[in-house]
Amino acid sequence: MKHLLLYFITTMLFYSCSNEPKIGYKTEGEELMQFSRDWSNLVKTGDMEKIMAGWTEESVMMAPGLPPLKGKKQIQNYLIEGSKIPGFAIRWEPLEVHISKSGDMAYMIERNEVKVNDSIGNPIFTYNKVVTIWEKQEDGSWKNVVDIWNDNPNGKY
Amino acid sequence: MKHLLLYFITTMLFYSCSNEPKIGYKTEGEELMQFSRDWSNLVKTGDMEKIMAGWTEESVMMAPGLPPLKGKKQIQNYLIEGSKIPGFAIRWEPLEVHISKSGDMAYMIERNEVKVNDSIGNPIFTYNKVVTIWEKQEDGSWKNVVDIWNDNPNGKY
Repeated sequence: MKHLLLYFITTMLFYSCSNEPKIGYKTEGEELMQFSRDWSNLVKTGDMEKIMAGWTEESVMMAPGLPPLKGKKQIQNYLIEGSKIPGFAIRWEPLEVHISKSGDMAYMIERNEVKVNDSIGNPIFTYNKVVTIWEKQEDGSWKNVVDIWNDNPNGKY
Repeated sequence: MKHLLLYFITTMLFYSCSNEPKIGYKTEGEELMQFSRDWSNLVKTGDMEKIMAGWTEESVMMAPGLPPLKGKKQIQNYLIEGSKIPGFAIRWEPLEVHISKSGDMAYMIERNEVKVNDSIGNPIFTYNKVVTIWEKQEDGSWKNVVDIWNDNPNGKY
């Protein structure tokens, strides 16, 4: 708690003293990576409203083997269909974050693990390389605008 | 030629009169899209040195079914191996461009068409959704830093 307070105060001081644009690059990157981790954990809860809050009507999800999924409704339908697959589970983690100098655009390189069950109920895991692109909204929140992935046989990055 | 000169003069005037950051968003976006089209045409020539100039040692290419290809050497090896596939040809076109306010980061949504021959020499076409991410270099040139794609059954975006 003390650390958090100290962090808050020093951050405020930094912002109020600096003539640079009010963006803490490294911190913002860490926040974005943490958002991605939290988002991955959120999927386990199945709370669709919270899960969907990461996207906007402008978002595009590019799943292998499908036309692009545009906007929240198409994305949500895809997630609902996916969740019906026996044994389905997904988790991901960010590996790298890059933010534009103006702090309005960012991308992350991530990886995910998808589990489904085979016909006799044994889990099958597949691994993907993932690229996510983020745009900062007027309210200061980051939203995922592009999400694309493809398979990575050994899951290593 | 006259058009080019007029374009050059008006662009210079715009830059010298404006107090905004010296970035012509729309123009820069169009330039980036044109770069992508030119790059696609360049591939047909097989001029590997010119083709490779679009990437840097920091670039990552994410081809389906492979670990990420990092840096020019791994990318070039992949291109060389690909070009040996009977009937191989690739072409792509940009569909959308988005540039950060600071003009140092951009992404494009693109699509490509890959041709290979089947065992009796008939062409087989596959279509992909593509996301490319670009970073402006110190010399003002844009380089492709991330290139990822996956299949799109009907090729429509």
